Amino acid sequence: MTEQRCFQDVMPGDECFGCGGNNNQGLQIKSYWQGETGICQWRPQTHHQGWAGLTCGGIIATLVDCHCVATAMAYAIREEGRMLGSEPHYRFATGSLSVRFVKPTSVNTPLLLTARVIEVKDKRKYRLNCEVAVAGQVTVEAEVVAFLVWRSDENSDSAFSGV
Amino acid sequence: MTEQRCFQDVMPGDECFGCGGNNNQGLQIKSYWQGETGICQWRPQTHHQGWAGLTCGGIIATLVDCHCVATAMAYAIREEGRMLGSEPHYRFATGSLSVRFVKPTSVNTPLLLTARVIEVKDKRKYRLNCEVAVAGQVTVEAEVVAFLVWRSDENSDSAFSGV
Repeated sequence: MTEQRCFQDVMPGDECFGCGGNNNQGLQIKSYWQGETGICQWRPQTHHQGWAGLTCGGIIATLVDCHCVATAMAYAIREEGRMLGSEPHYRFATGSLSVRFVKPTSVNTPLLLTARVIEVKDKRKYRLNCEVAVAGQVTVEAEVVAFLVWRSDENSDSAFSGV
Repeated sequence: MTEQRCFQDVMPGDECFGCGGNNNQGLQIKSYWQGETGICQWRPQTHHQGWAGLTCGGIIATLVDCHCVATAMAYAIREEGRMLGSEPHYRFATGSLSVRFVKPTSVNTPLLLTARVIEVKDKRKYRLNCEVAVAGQVTVEAEVVAFLVWRSDENSDSAFSGV
């Protein structure tokens, strides 16, 4: 099954700072499948820097978090043999996020994020590895645990039911 | 020694998305001492949300990261019996960041971050614990490792020398 669609396209009404297409003050990331890997290209601007010339660690954490949560969602749907956008819709939330800054990450240059689901428990808890690379050099290694917190065909955690 | 000064006040020219007072598109956090604890109050606005009504995890990671790095800097200076703003100036960078989202964190309500240095190695590597609380309830637990990467009286890592 070939799936070309952007993961965030199936999150209508998403206002998230990191991944909401409707959030004009946000990062508006877009994630796609490349084989078994969720990929995201994104270019930090000057106001996303930490120390001069380097991307802010918190911005990097935001990219990692939102890209991994979207990848978990897309993975769960794909594992069911479904296309993105088909029902039931799933919402994920981050349980934990660990980021190691192994090299400085420049600003004003394209970053490539790659994420893979490495473990699933009870079709609810998804563990992912994620890397950020600049010009082929890995600058950040991360791990995210994402939870399925809401699905459109069930009464799930109410905190995540409203968009 | 009583130190009332905001940690970020002694980082002139700081353009960081999280803590730069000059970054009009950033979070502009301000950190202070309360005894042995670095504290920071900050109110997320609607465009800082993740899922509707909840603060974006990446924004929380940004607050934690910048608050802990500033607290490490202030701690290092205080341990030398100096006042903030005295020379030599120190710059820190994040080595790693781990965040556990133990409860949803509302938006449009004041968040209180508290950070403490729990370990120092070789006057260079600082480990901190940090919590985020809303109305007295802890919603996030985090750990940050920050490194002293530049000091004004030495040739240190060149990546962090320019502001």
